[in-house]
Amino acid sequence: MFRNKSSLWGFLLSLSTATAAVVGSARADEGMWLFNQLPIEQLKSKHGFEPTPQWADHLMKSSVRFNVGGSASFISSNGLVLTNHHVASDTLYKLSSEKANYLENGFLAKSYDEELKAPDLELNQLVEIIDVTDKVTAAVKPEMPTSEAVAARRAVIDEISKESLKSTGLRSDVVTLFGGGRYHLYRYKKYTDVRLVWAPEASIAFFGGDADNFEYPRFNLDATIFRVYENGQPAKIDHYLKWSDKALAEGELIFVSGNPGRTNRIYTMAALQFQRDKRMPYTLNMLRRREIALQQFGLRGVENARRAKDDLFSVQNSRKAYLGMLGGLQDPAVMKSKQQAEEELLKAIKADKSLAGAADAFTAVAEIQQQQAALLGKSINLNTHLYGIAKQIVELVEEEQKPARDRLPEYSDAGRESLEQQLFSEAPLYADLETHLMADALSMMLENRGADDPVCQKAMMGKGPVDRAAELIGGTKLMDVAARRVLVKGGKAAVAASDDPMIVLARTLDADIRSYRKMTDDLAEKEKQAYAKIAEAMFKTRGTSTYPDATFTLRLAFGVVKGYEQAGQQLPPWTTLGGTYAHESAHVGQKDFVLPESWKKAKAKLNPEMNFNFVSSADIIGGNSGSPVVNRSGELVGLIFDGNLQSLPANYIFDDRQMRATSVSSQAIKHALEYVYDARGLVDQLGK
Amino acid sequence: MFRNKSSLWGFLLSLSTATAAVVGSARADEGMWLFNQLPIEQLKSKHGFEPTPQWADHLMKSSVRFNVGGSASFISSNGLVLTNHHVASDTLYKLSSEKANYLENGFLAKSYDEELKAPDLELNQLVEIIDVTDKVTAAVKPEMPTSEAVAARRAVIDEISKESLKSTGLRSDVVTLFGGGRYHLYRYKKYTDVRLVWAPEASIAFFGGDADNFEYPRFNLDATIFRVYENGQPAKIDHYLKWSDKALAEGELIFVSGNPGRTNRIYTMAALQFQRDKRMPYTLNMLRRREIALQQFGLRGVENARRAKDDLFSVQNSRKAYLGMLGGLQDPAVMKSKQQAEEELLKAIKADKSLAGAADAFTAVAEIQQQQAALLGKSINLNTHLYGIAKQIVELVEEEQKPARDRLPEYSDAGRESLEQQLFSEAPLYADLETHLMADALSMMLENRGADDPVCQKAMMGKGPVDRAAELIGGTKLMDVAARRVLVKGGKAAVAASDDPMIVLARTLDADIRSYRKMTDDLAEKEKQAYAKIAEAMFKTRGTSTYPDATFTLRLAFGVVKGYEQAGQQLPPWTTLGGTYAHESAHVGQKDFVLPESWKKAKAKLNPEMNFNFVSSADIIGGNSGSPVVNRSGELVGLIFDGNLQSLPANYIFDDRQMRATSVSSQAIKHALEYVYDARGLVDQLGK
Repeated sequence: MFRNKSSLWGFLLSLSTATAAVVGSARADEGMWLFNQLPIEQLKSKHGFEPTPQWADHLMKSSVRFNVGGSASFISSNGLVLTNHHVASDTLYKLSSEKANYLENGFLAKSYDEELKAPDLELNQLVEIIDVTDKVTAAVKPEMPTSEAVAARRAVIDEISKESLKSTGLRSDVVTLFGGGRYHLYRYKKYTDVRLVWAPEASIAFFGGDADNFEYPRFNLDATIFRVYENGQPAKIDHYLKWSDKALAEGELIFVSGNPGRTNRIYTMAALQFQRDKRMPYTLNMLRRREIALQQFGLRGVENARRAKDDLFSVQNSRKAYLGMLGGLQDPAVMKSKQQAEEELLKAIKADKSLAGAADAFTAVAEIQQQQAALLGKSINLNTHLYGIAKQIVELVEEEQKPARDRLPEYSDAGRESLEQQLFSEAPLYADLETHLMADALSMMLENRGADDPVCQKAMMGKGPVDRAAELIGGTKLMDVAARRVLVKGGKAAVAASDDPMIVLARTLDADIRSYRKMTDDLAEKEKQAYAKIAEAMFKTRGTSTYPDATFTLRLAFGVVKGYEQAGQQLPPWTTLGGTYAHESAHVGQKDFVLPESWKKAKAKLNPEMNFNFVSSADIIGGNSGSPVVNRSGELVGLIFDGNLQSLPANYIFDDRQMRATSVSSQAIKHALEYVYDARGLVDQLGK
Repeated sequence: MFRNKSSLWGFLLSLSTATAAVVGSARADEGMWLFNQLPIEQLKSKHGFEPTPQWADHLMKSSVRFNVGGSASFISSNGLVLTNHHVASDTLYKLSSEKANYLENGFLAKSYDEELKAPDLELNQLVEIIDVTDKVTAAVKPEMPTSEAVAARRAVIDEISKESLKSTGLRSDVVTLFGGGRYHLYRYKKYTDVRLVWAPEASIAFFGGDADNFEYPRFNLDATIFRVYENGQPAKIDHYLKWSDKALAEGELIFVSGNPGRTNRIYTMAALQFQRDKRMPYTLNMLRRREIALQQFGLRGVENARRAKDDLFSVQNSRKAYLGMLGGLQDPAVMKSKQQAEEELLKAIKADKSLAGAADAFTAVAEIQQQQAALLGKSINLNTHLYGIAKQIVELVEEEQKPARDRLPEYSDAGRESLEQQLFSEAPLYADLETHLMADALSMMLENRGADDPVCQKAMMGKGPVDRAAELIGGTKLMDVAARRVLVKGGKAAVAASDDPMIVLARTLDADIRSYRKMTDDLAEKEKQAYAKIAEAMFKTRGTSTYPDATFTLRLAFGVVKGYEQAGQQLPPWTTLGGTYAHESAHVGQKDFVLPESWKKAKAKLNPEMNFNFVSSADIIGGNSGSPVVNRSGELVGLIFDGNLQSLPANYIFDDRQMRATSVSSQAIKHALEYVYDARGLVDQLGK
């Protein structure tokens, strides 16, 4: 699943510090294009299609970003939003309880009244992009030392954001593109009253489970519908997608408008080797560890399993995705191709005296990898919700007192509202699960740093991980949102005076965490500067008409509906609804291949020939989950929910021979709503 | 489960190189005692019981060792052998197929004819122990350099074994005890025609699954019965256990006669820290990785799940056991207790000039840990059956040409028959599972050594792990036992000429493996010498009347039937048959808590008050699985199958406050055979 969940596992995504650099010149249907720099020529020459500014503007404004990770689209004038079940799953989980398990059993609101308010969702609609490169770069003088440059850049970015927020009322993010080669201001309309309208059962949304994840052929109704509200009423939406009523054609040109989370196509060979030999193996070990810990917790009982389910799903998804990425890096053909590209670029750099700095940048990147390797496993991260909350409170009351230029960027004034929405979320937390995960997190810290390490000694207070976890979770009041509010309101003094054991722990570790953070931030900054130089060299030698690495901001990808060859077999471009039942029959006795009752009952009513899931050559990655797929007319034909295993190395390199994006067909969604879920009222609103 | 499986995961057990040193003076009911050095005084003074030589000899000869890991006992004059289902599971798996899944569904032979021959079991009955310390130590001169000392010791040990084998026809192993302080010759009668008589369903043998494993209270019928044959007839057995017909009493003295695999109670603080901070975390990462890989394979289909089951079970069991051990090491109280003991010993050493070398030994151990840490992850181990076979063949044909003193010890002439039984086993292998695991093993090697490492380059031949694994498993003929025989018979020339890709791979890696092995063997030898000095100091300061660390040889433990306190709750010394049904009811909806049909049908016939599983304070560890538990009269009262979570740190330190050994009551086994399995013919043979 192409999720890019930011909450619990965000730290995994942030492990990789280099972001947002330029990518090689696009061949094939490659590219995650900026909406203000679309590949018009390429589309014209290759596909005979020229997108008009109106076409692009409409698609951009019909697109929605899930702030916690994931993409979506407006699909009606009265605020309906279509995304994936697995993007919605975090909210479905938070809305569920032991008695009403919507994540597992699905949900349908028959009227506005029945729609369920999500506890902490924020949806963003991109409405404007403004190039602010000149303003940002003017604030940073070449003679500034690194730390001063960082502070100056932070200050000007904060100023631009705040000014924009003040003048427009819109969420305003300055996005670093091309590794610092460009800075764009993204203005978003924000929706925070988001309500659940419909979700299918997990067993059809994720039919085939972990076994089928990232595989193809697929048969998944990985879709969920929300509605955005304003002032307590369904929001009036100007830009939303019409529903295509034509069946897909093989070879048809399609577009994907969504928010790919991160790619690292700029990476040098040294960086790829570090990823392959150090970072990925380390990350995979962490993921497997967490997966087993969550499985173990779930084995204790049915309700335990429900409580662990959302995290478990997320971790399993990441594990499979990382394995696929690592598989790409361990494939000598992939590395050879990257090696050749690097050699070519280095040759071009050597031929141009003005690019001398770029050659040094490669050396700098290589050195930075060594330093990063030395820091692996040294981070102080007790990955539980309650510790995360405590840490955020301790940091927030400190940071809010500083001027913008000296703050950690996640505590900017512009981001405060979004931060508080998460911090004060009423979503349920479970003490038993938190205790279990805290014990494992403490144990991992002891293993990573060595149990005699002073930081460990401070954290453990003479106890073993199990006892210490019980003491922390048993003693903290942070489960109660009111207690969090009191601390934040009380500011630094209240936090300093608190004897809540989790706050005490976060306070105790604060200095060490900041010191580690300083090291990684400095490395990240140096790496960024090095990649900016490399990007500049690429602009000079290959031209500027290209796309930057993904940054979890809106991009347009394109491609054609197209099967592929795998192990000597030609796979079809799509599967059918009828094939779903055959897939079940072929996997009797496997728990993840049992269709829900609703589908069993509806079998006779469904059109078995209708296409269900399809693959296309569009260039997507994690974060694109929930992206609308549209045709030349801008009509909705599908909903991205996955990529195949072969697409996972797209993090580093694109190759359209086997890489495929997997979608649910929009027709199948509508058909299922009508005949499986009897949701005619909802169907009538689609595209209207 | 207290299994000590040597086949696939043997390498995990062998990771820890120090073995068999002396342990501190025994308090409480501590100790895994040598049968030729029983704690007579302790038993007399504490429990008012004095075992006679006849009592001990009978128990020793009634005890059975499963050569692949695990313990058992003779329970009838016509060759019946009682062990755990989880010790038998490897054989049950090998005897099963897609059509007849004995591992899952159980088995009962109604007559001798129906008994199923195990493909590769070897059972050992210890018949004699001879102290050969003088002979071994005389062969090693103090002036010899390390490598020469190792060779000289190997030569004399081989000579003693061969001589004994020749003169008695018995399997003859020289066992290193007290870290080299003592050498004993163990003579075993060997049984290789072993047939399956009865096994229950996995769902009752392992009721509660991974969730209940190492937990208490328990309700497991973890028992299986084999029969040994000689010359095609049921063997006539002189020493076998009678079945006690009395119910257990709380506080009753019991004895456990079995083969604990390994303990490391001699470990210095430096060694414990290395285990805690390096070795255990590394091993756990490997185990979790394997667990996920096997789970992923099993998700592909019901038959896949069956194929992966035995390994998966074994890995999950190890993972839980290692976590428990690590938990002990991460408990400051445990480490403090070890620290104090070490400080006391060091004080005593300093007070005695003749023990000056022992103080240096502590420093040496600490240095060796550093060197071992540097080698972690550098081993070249492609952990699959087929690669293991290829490696063994390549090594065997080389080693058999060398004189005994220069050989790797596992290729001694004395051990050849046992080795060939495994190497030429007709047990089924599955190409799909082997391919899946080989891809993961190759990937792990790339991660551990870095993909650009020369050894990796040689192994991969320009391919990625998935492609290379497919090529290796697809191309090898080693699935066919005849092909293995041809290569072994053809010796070095045949192996050198082979173009079997797996043999080519093993040949290619041979030199690097040997060079790594040399490093670890040298470290192990140095460590052994250091611990021998420490052991000597302990003998001098605490007396010699103690027990050595476990060495997978027969030991006697003792204790009393006794509950314990956990989280403020007093747990009873035993559970009942009736409790089993209540345990099922308390876990509705959990797949590992569903009783088999046979138990549901028999409910009314069973005595609900009869004790089912019980705990005792006996000092056991992995390898003790299947050990008989007997009373003062030497009658069978139980069958060890597990220890509680609290017992896992017993690897390093014994503490009888909460540490408990868990057994199936012998009465319950008989009762179930009669009323659940309708195996009256078998019941009539028990103890007769």
